[in-house]
Formats: sequence, structure tokens, C-alpha cells
Amino acid sequence: MSQIHDLVRELREPNNSKIVLLVADGLGGLPLLPGGKTELETAKTPHLDDLAKIGVSGLSVPVLPGITPGSGPGHLGLFGYDPLEFRIGRGILEALGINFQVGPRDVAIRGNFCTLDASGTISDRRAGRPSTETCVEVCKILAKIEVPGAEIFVEPVREHRFVLVIRGDNLGDRVNDTDPQIVGAKPLLASGADDASKRTAEIINQFVEKATRALIDQAPTNGITLRGFARHPAIASMHDVYGLRSAALAVYPMYRGLARLVGMEILETGPTLETQVDALKAAWNDHDFFFLHYKYTDATGEDGNFDAKVKATEAFDAIIPAVRALNPTVLIVTGDHSTPSKMKSHSWHPVPTLLSADTCRTDAVTTFGESACLQGGLGQFEAKHLMLLAMAHAGRLGKYGA
Amino acid sequence: MSQIHDLVRELREPNNSKIVLLVADGLGGLPLLPGGKTELETAKTPHLDDLAKIGVSGLSVPVLPGITPGSGPGHLGLFGYDPLEFRIGRGILEALGINFQVGPRDVAIRGNFCTLDASGTISDRRAGRPSTETCVEVCKILAKIEVPGAEIFVEPVREHRFVLVIRGDNLGDRVNDTDPQIVGAKPLLASGADDASKRTAEIINQFVEKATRALIDQAPTNGITLRGFARHPAIASMHDVYGLRSAALAVYPMYRGLARLVGMEILETGPTLETQVDALKAAWNDHDFFFLHYKYTDATGEDGNFDAKVKATEAFDAIIPAVRALNPTVLIVTGDHSTPSKMKSHSWHPVPTLLSADTCRTDAVTTFGESACLQGGLGQFEAKHLMLLAMAHAGRLGKYGA
Repeated sequence: MSQIHDLVRELREPNNSKIVLLVADGLGGLPLLPGGKTELETAKTPHLDDLAKIGVSGLSVPVLPGITPGSGPGHLGLFGYDPLEFRIGRGILEALGINFQVGPRDVAIRGNFCTLDASGTISDRRAGRPSTETCVEVCKILAKIEVPGAEIFVEPVREHRFVLVIRGDNLGDRVNDTDPQIVGAKPLLASGADDASKRTAEIINQFVEKATRALIDQAPTNGITLRGFARHPAIASMHDVYGLRSAALAVYPMYRGLARLVGMEILETGPTLETQVDALKAAWNDHDFFFLHYKYTDATGEDGNFDAKVKATEAFDAIIPAVRALNPTVLIVTGDHSTPSKMKSHSWHPVPTLLSADTCRTDAVTTFGESACLQGGLGQFEAKHLMLLAMAHAGRLGKYGA
Repeated sequence: MSQIHDLVRELREPNNSKIVLLVADGLGGLPLLPGGKTELETAKTPHLDDLAKIGVSGLSVPVLPGITPGSGPGHLGLFGYDPLEFRIGRGILEALGINFQVGPRDVAIRGNFCTLDASGTISDRRAGRPSTETCVEVCKILAKIEVPGAEIFVEPVREHRFVLVIRGDNLGDRVNDTDPQIVGAKPLLASGADDASKRTAEIINQFVEKATRALIDQAPTNGITLRGFARHPAIASMHDVYGLRSAALAVYPMYRGLARLVGMEILETGPTLETQVDALKAAWNDHDFFFLHYKYTDATGEDGNFDAKVKATEAFDAIIPAVRALNPTVLIVTGDHSTPSKMKSHSWHPVPTLLSADTCRTDAVTTFGESACLQGGLGQFEAKHLMLLAMAHAGRLGKYGA
């Protein structure tokens, strides 16, 4: 994929085109009964159907057939970064999810509060699932801890979960989880697999020791376990790869964070689709590429609420005319993965995708849905190739070879 | 891909089958208006439609989704050479295009005549676009130059363009372009990035110095710039990879040259499709694999002439009965890329492809066209895999593993 990035850098040509990528999170679904319709097929989506008529449709495979992606790999693929090559560690994703701006000198770690008994062994791995308010209070105690050689950040997530970030020079992330994954054992000592990671482990072990002392009166949240040590990934920006001035219109911190990871500018927007479209209009002249993220097709799927996902899809459909009114050169509608409400979870099923542009080869597809997309001209394709198609249809890729 | 070549070498089995690959250059197209028909779909192609009925259809992706290939990568893919792995430099392609037979000791370079002012700076990068006659005459002057350590060939292309080939031992091609790409600057000195390329650069700098003296009275064609230094690529022959005695029936030098690069025998043919088919018949018993190249589907597309491309496609259709009369074991019809007349250029759109053989799994496709091929049994596939399908349907590939 870095090879593909090199190819793009070699072939790309600047122009005044505008590319809009609309991502309805978890867009793909399943019928509740065999032979039935999916959420997308049930929804009334006249505007998406219009787009399907003039555009070209297909199904994108987020990672590989059968592989269910999390939000990180799902979005990286759509941005043209091979999700098998570019991995975002759990600590980083957790930090992105609470809007913590991770930097190149940071190691981010997911933390859990646990309950330790008098001998220091874990009696409850989730500290009795404390309230988020408790989590916030106990994190304040941890945030006061100082360890030489690193700046320490402790940020609450919710219930027993928090994020720990250590910032310093030459810190590695090849550090074992301190969570033993069972009750009745003591938290493990951290150890590093290389010199930089040994520095991290030393800082962590000091931190944990001080934390255990500081929390001694805070039972059941009197211990911590740590996992998913992860540095900020070395990842080229969208501008570096594609030459695109890129901007994100996302409400949830996780997606703003993912967009920031690949160098997009994060635009201010209100919490609704309408405010996102307003922000898109306002920024139209300042960027070449716009990523708009919509969460509720995923959230309703995760809830297992078929009807709510149908409604969320219809709300998404309603913004299409306003986006089309901006006359983007290339307009893409897709999802980062499927979230069938039948499964109440992300899934591996290919994701309905459509692309509309003057240079697209129209197919016979006239509605936007999983079955219809099977007949589409994009076929089934790897999500990581979507940006090549976007760039090509925008006239931004020159000829390869003479 | 070399990995795939190794696999083919391991599995291939000789037999008496005949494979014919008919390449209509730039075959794929676009409708002029959304929902309309492409050039191929507009053309009356009863013979191709008959083949589609008994064969299996699909769409080939020349390089990657969204990547528009030049003729070199487009054809390499069809011959089963990964176009991202095997790159043909511009100097080599330029030499192939004028039928210059580049060899393993050659470095081929594209040359431009330019105009130098009294101080030696470039005042016109194309020397006022001289006539091709002038180009021929001035090349004769350059061809007389001798430089120790290399044989020198200077061949006119047209207008301000010529090909320079230096032939010698251990000459590298990692040499910078001497064309500064702007007027008001002097041509750059050549320098090499490794020992072999330093030898090339030294020869080139001597050649340019002598050329500038020899052309002193030839203004406006009194200077030269050079670019695209390229050695003959290290590429295994079709015979070495597939065990096929391969032959090419191509009219234009570029395609004869590309076929020669992969070790095909270049058969003599007149300039028309009919003479190409006659030459095919005449050579039928002497080869296992025949590549027939037809230029006018591309040339008319590049001209933006939809109707002319339709007519060129119909002319191509007319030769199918004569080819089928030879009873090839495998008959493939495809293009090296799309050239939609709407775009007046090569494009990235997948290329209609059909394969007919006794062993093919027939699909429901009954006409040959972009939309129909979408429903075909070959699906959308990478062009570099086409030769595997050809070999398999010819019964020339044994089982992989027990």
C-alpha cells in the first residue's frame, strides 16, 4: 500500500475538483429473515436512488472477505490506507475516542480500574463497574502523579475505563499488558521488548506503584491494569499522499481523531446532519476533499433496532440534495463496515457504495441497496482502492506509463 | 508476479493447443450521456455477440482500480506481467515506437531539439517545432558523432523529438534528465546515481558537448535536451514463462516492440486487419500463441470521435469469423485499456473481455459490451491474471498440489 501511495504521488495532478466522501457508519445490513430486505433496502431513500441511477455502484470489502473491522481499520481503508499495513493501537483509538490529541512523543494506553484485595491480587477486574462520575474523580487523583522522564495524562472514559498517556522522548510501545485477564492474580509488571519500550515500562511501573499508594483508600477502585500500549502511528497525511486539502465533518471524537490522524482539518460543526452540511457549505472553497461522518446508522444497528436504523438511513438520505447542490466533482456514499441490526454488531459483509461523477461509467443500478449494488459497475472491491477511484474520477490521476 | 511466473513454470504442461489473443486497443468506452450506450454497445457486432453467447465474459482491470495505463503497462498486464512490477522506461518505449530494436546493452533516451541563445540558455524548449523533415536532417548530423566507450544511435521521431540510444558494456540508466523543463535555463549536465550510470552520464555529457558544436549553425534546432534514460528491462520471455511459441501480428511499431520485449516473434503483415488475419493463417502451425493488435478503436477514441470508434469496432468484429475458422483452442477478445471518445484519452474504466473455449463455463451474457460483461462469469479481474485463464482453458496448466 505504501507502494500504492508512492504510485499516487507519482501520478497525481492538481486541479480544482471537489471530492465528497459521505460515510454512513455501519451502513450495510442484513434482512431479518432470508429473502427479506435489509435496513437500507427497507428505507425510503429517493435521493440515494437518484444518485445510484446516474452513478456507478458496488460493494466495498473493508479489509478482507470475512474480516469484521473496527472503526479504525474501517475508516483507514476508506481513506486509502491499507488497514492491514497501518494499524492503530487500542490505546491510540481509546485516546482518539475521548478527543485527546495524541502527538508523536506520546504512548497511549487503555486503563481499567480494578479492585485489589489486601494481598494486592485482583478481586474484580472492573472494580464493580463504578459510575462514570466516580471514574472522573479517581482519574483526578491519578492525574496528580508525577514520574521523572515523562509527562503524564490521565483521562476518564466511562465506568471503569480511562486513558493513560505518557509523553516523552524515545518512548516505545512494545510493552506487555499489565492486565492478567483473570481474577486472583496480581497485576503484571510492565516490561519492554526494546530499549525505548524499556524506558516506557520503567515509567509505567513507577506510575502504577504510585497509583496503588494514591488509591489505597479508594476501594473498590483501588487498583489499575493497563493494556494496548500504542504510539502515534507513522502515517502520511492525505495531503502528502493525494495532494488534497482535506477536511472532516464529524461529530463523534473517535472519527474526528481518525481524520486528524491522516492530517485532515477538523471543521467545527453542530451535532446534526444539517449543521454538518452547513459547515460543509461554509468550508467549500477552502478544501478539495470532504469527509462527512454519520454515526446513527451504526448506533441503531448496534442496538439491534431495525426500524431505528431504517429511520436513521432515511435521515441520511435527506441531506443528499443539499450536498449535490454544491456540485461536487465526485460524490461517494459508503460505510466503513456493515452493522446489521440482526447481529447487533459490526460485521464483515461488504458495504453498499456508490460513486457519482461525470466520468463514471453508469450501470443499470437504479436503487441504492445491498442486492442492487451486486449488479453495479464497481463490482466488489477492496475499500483501500476507493480513493484511487475518487482521484481518477476527479481527473486527479495522470496516466501510468507511456 | 514473478511468484506467479514461477507457479506457471511449475504447473505448465505442453500440448498442441492454440491460444489467440485479440486486442482492440482502447476497447472500453463510455456513453456520451448517462444511461446511453458506449461505443461498443452502439456498434453492430454480431460475431462478437455470438462469441459472448458461447464464451464467458467479464471486465479486466488493467493495473488497479482508478489507474489509467499507458500502452506499455496495458499490454504487459495482458501478457501476464504485473505492470506495477515490470516498468518500461520512457526511452525504451520511445525507441520501440520507432521500431528501434533495443538490446540488453542499450540505454535508450528520449531527445528533444531545443533552441539555445548565444549564452547557451534555452529560448525554446521545442526548437519552434521543426518539420519532421528538419528533424530527420538534423538527426543525421548527430548520428555522425562518436564518443569513446559506446556506440551511438540517433533516430528521428517527429518534429522536435528524436531517440538517442547508446550501446556499450555496463551502462546504467539512473541518470537525471538534462531537460530543465523551463526556458531561460541551460540544459543540465548528466550525472549518474551509481557506477554504471556514471559511465552513461560521462558518455552523454561528451555527446551533448559535441552535439552543441555540431549544431552551432542549425538554429533554431541548435541544442538538445534528454530525458527518460532507460535500459532494456530484465523480463522473462513468454516462452520462458509459459512455454508458448508466441507470435505478434501488429501494425504499429510500439506494439511490435512491446511484443518483442516479451520475446514474441514479430510476423510480417500488411497494414489492414485482413492482412493481419492472412498472416495469422499463414503462421498457424508455427506458434502456440498469437497476439493480434488493432489500433483504431483507440485512435478514434483519442480523437473523440464516437461514431468513428463505433465503425472501427464493427470493422474489428468482421474478422471474428475468419479467426474462428482456424478453430483456436482459446480465443480471447479484450483491450489494453479503455479509451472513451467522451474523454479523448485512455482511462481507468475496466475493459470488456470475453474468452471462448470448450472448457469455459458459459454465462448468461449474449452480447459483448460493458454492461453485459458486468454480468459475466469472469467478473472483474486483474488483467495480469488473463494469461492464467488462457493457459488453463487451453489445458496447459496442471494441478497445483496433490
